[in-house]
Amino acid sequence: MDIPRVVKPNDVLLKIPCAGICGSDIHCIKNKWLIKDNVVLGHEFAGTVVDIGPEVTNVKAGDRVTAAAGTHCHHCRFCHRGKPHLCPTGGSANYNGLFRDGAWADYCLVENSQLFKISDDITFEVGALMEPMSCVLHSFSIYSPLQDSASILIAGSGIIGLLKASVLHYKGFRDITICEPMQGRRDIAKNCQLSGLKVADPSEIIEKYTDIDTSLDGYDLIFDSTGSSKAFEDYFPLLRKGATYMMFGICPPKAKSSISPYDLLNKEVKILSSNTECNTHMDAVSLAENMARDGKLDLEKLGVKSYPLEKYETALKDLTNATISKAMLTV
Amino acid sequence: MDIPRVVKPNDVLLKIPCAGICGSDIHCIKNKWLIKDNVVLGHEFAGTVVDIGPEVTNVKAGDRVTAAAGTHCHHCRFCHRGKPHLCPTGGSANYNGLFRDGAWADYCLVENSQLFKISDDITFEVGALMEPMSCVLHSFSIYSPLQDSASILIAGSGIIGLLKASVLHYKGFRDITICEPMQGRRDIAKNCQLSGLKVADPSEIIEKYTDIDTSLDGYDLIFDSTGSSKAFEDYFPLLRKGATYMMFGICPPKAKSSISPYDLLNKEVKILSSNTECNTHMDAVSLAENMARDGKLDLEKLGVKSYPLEKYETALKDLTNATISKAMLTV
Amino acid sequence: MDIPRVVKPNDVLLKIPCAGICGSDIHCIKNKWLIKDNVVLGHEFAGTVVDIGPEVTNVKAGDRVTAAAGTHCHHCRFCHRGKPHLCPTGGSANYNGLFRDGAWADYCLVENSQLFKISDDITFEVGALMEPMSCVLHSFSIYSPLQDSASILIAGSGIIGLLKASVLHYKGFRDITICEPMQGRRDIAKNCQLSGLKVADPSEIIEKYTDIDTSLDGYDLIFDSTGSSKAFEDYFPLLRKGATYMMFGICPPKAKSSISPYDLLNKEVKILSSNTECNTHMDAVSLAENMARDGKLDLEKLGVKSYPLEKYETALKDLTNATISKAMLTV
Amino acid sequence: MDIPRVVKPNDVLLKIPCAGICGSDIHCIKNKWLIKDNVVLGHEFAGTVVDIGPEVTNVKAGDRVTAAAGTHCHHCRFCHRGKPHLCPTGGSANYNGLFRDGAWADYCLVENSQLFKISDDITFEVGALMEPMSCVLHSFSIYSPLQDSASILIAGSGIIGLLKASVLHYKGFRDITICEPMQGRRDIAKNCQLSGLKVADPSEIIEKYTDIDTSLDGYDLIFDSTGSSKAFEDYFPLLRKGATYMMFGICPPKAKSSISPYDLLNKEVKILSSNTECNTHMDAVSLAENMARDGKLDLEKLGVKSYPLEKYETALKDLTNATISKAMLTV
Repeated sequence: MDIPRVVKPNDVLLKIPCAGICGSDIHCIKNKWLIKDNVVLGHEFAGTVVDIGPEVTNVKAGDRVTAAAGTHCHHCRFCHRGKPHLCPTGGSANYNGLFRDGAWADYCLVENSQLFKISDDITFEVGALMEPMSCVLHSFSIYSPLQDSASILIAGSGIIGLLKASVLHYKGFRDITICEPMQGRRDIAKNCQLSGLKVADPSEIIEKYTDIDTSLDGYDLIFDSTGSSKAFEDYFPLLRKGATYMMFGICPPKAKSSISPYDLLNKEVKILSSNTECNTHMDAVSLAENMARDGKLDLEKLGVKSYPLEKYETALKDLTNATISKAMLTV
Repeated sequence: MDIPRVVKPNDVLLKIPCAGICGSDIHCIKNKWLIKDNVVLGHEFAGTVVDIGPEVTNVKAGDRVTAAAGTHCHHCRFCHRGKPHLCPTGGSANYNGLFRDGAWADYCLVENSQLFKISDDITFEVGALMEPMSCVLHSFSIYSPLQDSASILIAGSGIIGLLKASVLHYKGFRDITICEPMQGRRDIAKNCQLSGLKVADPSEIIEKYTDIDTSLDGYDLIFDSTGSSKAFEDYFPLLRKGATYMMFGICPPKAKSSISPYDLLNKEVKILSSNTECNTHMDAVSLAENMARDGKLDLEKLGVKSYPLEKYETALKDLTNATISKAMLTV
Repeated sequence: MDIPRVVKPNDVLLKIPCAGICGSDIHCIKNKWLIKDNVVLGHEFAGTVVDIGPEVTNVKAGDRVTAAAGTHCHHCRFCHRGKPHLCPTGGSANYNGLFRDGAWADYCLVENSQLFKISDDITFEVGALMEPMSCVLHSFSIYSPLQDSASILIAGSGIIGLLKASVLHYKGFRDITICEPMQGRRDIAKNCQLSGLKVADPSEIIEKYTDIDTSLDGYDLIFDSTGSSKAFEDYFPLLRKGATYMMFGICPPKAKSSISPYDLLNKEVKILSSNTECNTHMDAVSLAENMARDGKLDLEKLGVKSYPLEKYETALKDLTNATISKAMLTV
Repeated sequence: MDIPRVVKPNDVLLKIPCAGICGSDIHCIKNKWLIKDNVVLGHEFAGTVVDIGPEVTNVKAGDRVTAAAGTHCHHCRFCHRGKPHLCPTGGSANYNGLFRDGAWADYCLVENSQLFKISDDITFEVGALMEPMSCVLHSFSIYSPLQDSASILIAGSGIIGLLKASVLHYKGFRDITICEPMQGRRDIAKNCQLSGLKVADPSEIIEKYTDIDTSLDGYDLIFDSTGSSKAFEDYFPLLRKGATYMMFGICPPKAKSSISPYDLLNKEVKILSSNTECNTHMDAVSLAENMARDGKLDLEKLGVKSYPLEKYETALKDLTNATISKAMLTV
């Protein structure tokens, strides 16, 4: 494949050592989501700057960087109101790996505004986790503040659920339950060794709440990374009064969830959602550096495994079998 | 009926000149909602103080007052976190007119913490509207801030929808559509003479959005006072990206609404809800006084009509026929 | 003077019919503030698009527009955290009229991200007010929410104080006092005919509070547009408990204000500040359109007067003498 | 001394094993602050319930509890707007130990709304720290959200500064500097063994920033627990653009601090303050339980030491000499 070239004044060319496989990539491959034809996939990546356009001042050749995948138009109603991630021609509508060539390749071309330097404390593999980490922090900024004693249910123990649990634990929350139907994923969660973390099969959770008045004793936060419309139906009734349901997983576009508008009102709960990232990447890097220094961002424990690019089918299989939580493709 | 008597140190006895009929009262009567047996209904009221307990200092005999209907325990998890309206033994669980005797009577006994003095600019009829007004402000505080240019859909043109439109108009919003299936209610809305207000039948709204990309051109706020689970399904798809759905109407307890969790996430919208009132009654009085002085709180235009207490069946019939938006019972 | 030319892909050339004189312009002229040598002043402007660069899609030749004066780098810590107005190489550090040529000229070159279309309801003079209007809304977004019953003191009755009063009145606030030492400016404020507005000399205000416990009966919001370090000292003690002091005026760089840190804590008040604008220009245009349609943005009443460009010294004199609140230069 | 007796329906009598000495107690003793004559001091306490009034349902005899020191009137403008700690007849105006008898005694009478049960994981000494812990969390709720990468200066290394550092560290912040002039207090801070914590003398901090552009490289948060008006003057210039100064220490009532209103505006910084506690006590207990279980709330490391009640003069001397950060009086 041809190496892309710096053309525009703010272009930056990155040499890519590794890039993550996101659940959405699998959707793109399997379900033929609407993305650009023949685009190179890969929107979770870090790398080394090898060339810059004439107006680039924030990075220089040789810098180790992580990248947000989207750019922004700077002139639409969303950009002009501080929500550039919803920009109709930017954000995920212009992601590397969806609508511009991504990072499952030796090189990737980005705009300088996408880049964040990473310290030597951080490996490229951790750097390639900054996009999901930033998305996780974006959701945090949407439902904050969260009381210190919050009872938290994390639905889904993929890499998003695990990062979420790790970040919340690092921020001092201790009443966290991960709920996951796949045994392999539950095993990874248990292996994370987060003090106080409870790991459960959905049936246990549902059963536990059969005879409980959830308005008083339910969860204060349910973070749903399942991508299952059924999960939303199952977990929504478990909210305590005043609580928040945070939708993070991407459900099938035509799926519907059936919920009680009476409960919604009676408990005065909120249903929020979090789409990609907004103003959180820089803090994701900072947080990851702190966690890494404290030994709290151990990729092996988190179930992150690296594969040579050509073995991506093996990686997909391991993901499907839940022996890993995240595959990194290395080149 | 016996006149209730001041017993506790903070009790206050009110002489009641008028009290509103709330949609929930009709539910209580028709559908036998779970309220206290033989309770006197009426949770929207104003009156004159006639007696006070020995520890009452904030009001005295002769004061004209409006009242919040609920009290609070001051020691539960909700009271201790600034959400006393969710208190399991307070808030609506201890409302006058639901679980304590209410104001469809000559006298009503309340706690001093429920009371707010009203100026002579305000009639008792306006005073009896302060409970719904405060609920409307409570919802405002939950979804705020709302950008000045927000495109707003108010679903339902009962008194709540009309108060909502009036308050938003008074606060400078001009892109407001009221959507209502009943001709009589639409007529009342038109009669309110709010500059720029659009009044539509639901079919017009649905049709208008058939060929529109609502993610870019939908509503920024949908305020749902319909109490219809179907309305939630119909209007939810009309949200613009980043927008808010505010559930205010009380749907049947067993009804379900079927919504798309993909849209929820893809548009990054919020579904919020607003249950009764919290810390808003004092401002409701202040706002109502300002609006009244400016001629912007005209009960006749709003479709509010007074009936002698013994004619409450006529009042209910007029409400059902949508020739009025709110009935006040006078004694 | 040469007409500037479109060079960069996102450049837009505007024909300028009028531009405002800002208090900061006068500082620049009199006190030789640090701005670019020989820069053309004028950062409050509207105009007509006459030429666009090849990547501009949001405006086209012939469009009537208003402009934010600053651009942003999109990659600094402030841009990456949603505060681009604090960008060290953008925001006011790259304002037209300070560090790039501004609009006291026939033409002005801007970046497409600075532009907002205005409807035909809005004159260019009103369009040229959108920069200060947006700054006023920026301050609103910082101290919001403000309770409906808030008691508000606006210190200074220049155009900023008058716009602030007009906007707050349009948003439903009625307990507003403008405090201003110059008779001419007080006369303009009175002439605005905002219902309920109180206009006072500072001595009256200070005297009024001599014997009052301000912790209970002071102001809930003090908006300081005086640019006087002494005013801050005088008005700060007038805050009620829980209130907010919003610093908006630009004081001399070396001036100090002496305040009581005990009062700060004991009353638990906030001292906030508002620098230029951030994500508010689009709403300023929308709000101005609504106000103009309602007859609530009458430039003559507000004391705004237009002068031919060559008469700018007369304009400055009228400003100094307080016979006007704002001068517009027309070409 | 006579044992107080349960009189009112919501009274609760506590047996007090220990109570803290607060800096404000020392002010009361030395400077004759305006408190109730002959009041028993002590507003930081935990204890065991020994008697309850007839309407008390949230605790029973034998319960181990911690207490907020204030009650509230429930009907003033502050109580009715969710800020009961500012209540003119409640909050600190009705604190045990200031205006009602406090806990430097065998028994203390409180209202049931003040009480929070503590688990057996928590000693009474830790329980008696919940009042300052809650105040620390109250300040956190006021300046939140705080970005993960925030650069934080804590001015003052008394128990408040140390608790603040401990809580922020537990919540994942790692760029924290404690600045303290007394060697003994600095030693206690170092002994806390918080990873990454920097401990400095004020002169080092001031010197460090002599040649630095603080608008870009200053602190994002300065938490001032010094009680010194001079400290406010010294540290205020060290704020980065967009940053927050949180005033927590009680300065002498007549002291003034001289700050630059130009800097305030130019950097768009906030000056906030935090007075006692509001809706945070329950979370303080929860957070303390979590920290204690993780070994992150070690009273010895924090410099907390217990003394028999009759040795309170020794305790005061040790506090003055900075060999301890907090004295607990035991009975």
